[in-house]
Amino acid sequence: MMIRTNLEHIGEAIDFASYKEEVARIDRSIKERTGKGSDFLGWVDQADEYLKSEELPRLIETGKRLRENYEVLVVCGIGGSYLGARAAIEALTGTLPKKGIDVLWLGETFDPTYISRALAYLKDKKFCVNVISKSGTTTETALSFRLLRNLLEERDGKEAARKAIVATTDGKKGALLTLSRQEGYETFVLPGDIGGRYSVQTAVGLLPMAAMGIDVMALLNGSKDAAKEYREPDVTKNEAYKYAVCRHHLYEKGKKVELFCTYLPTLVQLTEWWKQLFGESEGKEGKSLFPASACFSTDLHSLGQFIQEGSQIFFETILHLEKPEEDLPIPGDKDDLDGLNYLAGKPLSFVQERAFRGVLEAHAEGAGIPNIVLEMERMDAYSLGYLFYFFEKACAMSAYLNGVNPFDQPGVEVYKRNMFRLLGKPGF
Amino acid sequence: MMIRTNLEHIGEAIDFASYKEEVARIDRSIKERTGKGSDFLGWVDQADEYLKSEELPRLIETGKRLRENYEVLVVCGIGGSYLGARAAIEALTGTLPKKGIDVLWLGETFDPTYISRALAYLKDKKFCVNVISKSGTTTETALSFRLLRNLLEERDGKEAARKAIVATTDGKKGALLTLSRQEGYETFVLPGDIGGRYSVQTAVGLLPMAAMGIDVMALLNGSKDAAKEYREPDVTKNEAYKYAVCRHHLYEKGKKVELFCTYLPTLVQLTEWWKQLFGESEGKEGKSLFPASACFSTDLHSLGQFIQEGSQIFFETILHLEKPEEDLPIPGDKDDLDGLNYLAGKPLSFVQERAFRGVLEAHAEGAGIPNIVLEMERMDAYSLGYLFYFFEKACAMSAYLNGVNPFDQPGVEVYKRNMFRLLGKPGF
Repeated sequence: MMIRTNLEHIGEAIDFASYKEEVARIDRSIKERTGKGSDFLGWVDQADEYLKSEELPRLIETGKRLRENYEVLVVCGIGGSYLGARAAIEALTGTLPKKGIDVLWLGETFDPTYISRALAYLKDKKFCVNVISKSGTTTETALSFRLLRNLLEERDGKEAARKAIVATTDGKKGALLTLSRQEGYETFVLPGDIGGRYSVQTAVGLLPMAAMGIDVMALLNGSKDAAKEYREPDVTKNEAYKYAVCRHHLYEKGKKVELFCTYLPTLVQLTEWWKQLFGESEGKEGKSLFPASACFSTDLHSLGQFIQEGSQIFFETILHLEKPEEDLPIPGDKDDLDGLNYLAGKPLSFVQERAFRGVLEAHAEGAGIPNIVLEMERMDAYSLGYLFYFFEKACAMSAYLNGVNPFDQPGVEVYKRNMFRLLGKPGF
Repeated sequence: MMIRTNLEHIGEAIDFASYKEEVARIDRSIKERTGKGSDFLGWVDQADEYLKSEELPRLIETGKRLRENYEVLVVCGIGGSYLGARAAIEALTGTLPKKGIDVLWLGETFDPTYISRALAYLKDKKFCVNVISKSGTTTETALSFRLLRNLLEERDGKEAARKAIVATTDGKKGALLTLSRQEGYETFVLPGDIGGRYSVQTAVGLLPMAAMGIDVMALLNGSKDAAKEYREPDVTKNEAYKYAVCRHHLYEKGKKVELFCTYLPTLVQLTEWWKQLFGESEGKEGKSLFPASACFSTDLHSLGQFIQEGSQIFFETILHLEKPEEDLPIPGDKDDLDGLNYLAGKPLSFVQERAFRGVLEAHAEGAGIPNIVLEMERMDAYSLGYLFYFFEKACAMSAYLNGVNPFDQPGVEVYKRNMFRLLGKPGF
């Protein structure tokens, strides 16, 4: 059991027996592909299939080529076409400037200042581009990609640009696929039966990861093993379903917001990925928990007051990692003016762990806020692959428990239609 | 009028007349320092006073010295002792790697991996440290500062470390002040009558900004002029109070969450600063709006579905900037496979502006979500100083309207007491 859904701090005992039948029924509808949106269940066995695919060795090879030949990898995508890669890259390689290839995110904004400065920054860098878009016409991404492509072609020539651009897109149709064929870009497939927010274990997430030196085989193996574990239909034996049922139960009892908290600054983007997964899957028909996030102990010095004594409309879900990837002893000091000598010689992880315990006590026992604790040993590629799948499976179950289609996003189109009309796009 | 509180998209007309008397009474209590927490009203006229102070020229000079002599500025602080500086530095200098001095944030986490890697990264960099702590004993900050100081002293010697460390701390007492006097560090004052979340216009925020090349005089002038404008006691003539009353009104009507949205990726940290300001000021006695944030259009591809069709427990506050700092024309393309040629020759800012209008229409008129729009011309140092003050004054009014002390944070201590006990700190 890689991830344990610890429900000892939610302030009550959930009657799982009463959920057993419904969970088993939904589980069956996922397996038999009979539920709402079941055309988008490609993610369920994706990792296992991709591990056997011909594309994977080529993806790893391309990642290596990019890593060894460029200073900057520009990932040009938005929403599900960049959040997973960003979450993984920050979780596994950190947020500090890199010694080898570094990563830059573009195609996720219209901000003229940001885009102008990014292009100016790239002007004297040897950079490559992974453009990620199912259709190739998503406005944010397509605009930035035009600018990036122009910069490469004008500066380095057509042939060099061809080598520097890799496209992840639909396997059969679309503007980006047509362009890639015409220009001779290397392409990877964004599978048609997997939605953006479920695509981190496809080439969408894996190619940027591979280019940044992440062990994508390990990550896929994590997801594959998770798929095996979470196939279990019995909610009392399935940690992902336990989490789904618990958050559903708290929602039904009146909680309005789920605050997903980690203790690592490098996991801020993982919480952003999580917000898309749950917000976009469940936020429909006027329902669902508002997905919010925090990084502790950092944000205890900003949101901590509200959490402890503010309006009790939320519960917390804490990702607790048992072992750090690196550690340091706390040094002693001859004067001890800061009064920290009682910690001298102890590792930093000792303080991190005690902070976690102290906060849990303050929030759960002290303030009566339900705290779901997701326990995982560490944050490496295998574990992260496992964790991605844990949330994906939990989210599908949770959305079905709420009675909504986990895999569509009709509301995202509304602002686009207005924008196209205001932009004067032909046909709008 | 630098900032306009546009209430045309909240779906109703607020009866400001009914708030007039209460707002004027609270305004008087701020001016006469008779309300709850009035020992912490130093921020009200801080900018004007600091502009006349002897410390300011020295602060600018020190900023210049750090900028010219080091590759990395490490800001070592947490909560109010770093959020404002970070918000300003990202808003005004961006998030891309810098050509001159770059900034690194530490002292805001216990994460052993992050701290270990940050120290390894700094090992071969010429770095300086601005340690910011009122007491000098805040655990996160003091721990990282011990490690940073050790690294500097062991690598470069005592004298070089002395020059590389600047402390911002209490002017009269405390561990950090004592240490600074003993070691001969240059110090700046964290005023005793200004709380952390109101301290961005003091040395706390200004020294890191000055070191990163920001025009702190312009920022202070913005705050000073804002202080003059928002002295107005009549809510119908005071844009900050209008915002405060509107959000209070929406809270009273049942909204649970305020979603603060910007359209610039470089303003994500400004929204974090805003979350602390409102969350910590108002989140007490079981009351207050849950402060959340988003960056558009980026997050429309993740939270957009929830916003458009999910649970309607929130309203939006949009910061709308009329002019970008930089801009670019959209290039044409001979094949137009992505279908963007209808935009060729138009500036990126045209798309950004139409996106803003389209989203506003989709959310406010389409989904019926109240949208408060804060309109400001641009994001430069003067405007940002103005904006900081706008929110500070609005927050004080809003907390008083809620009947709570805007300037204390009793709840923040709870987890710390537990943590100290679990760490075995003497006396706990």
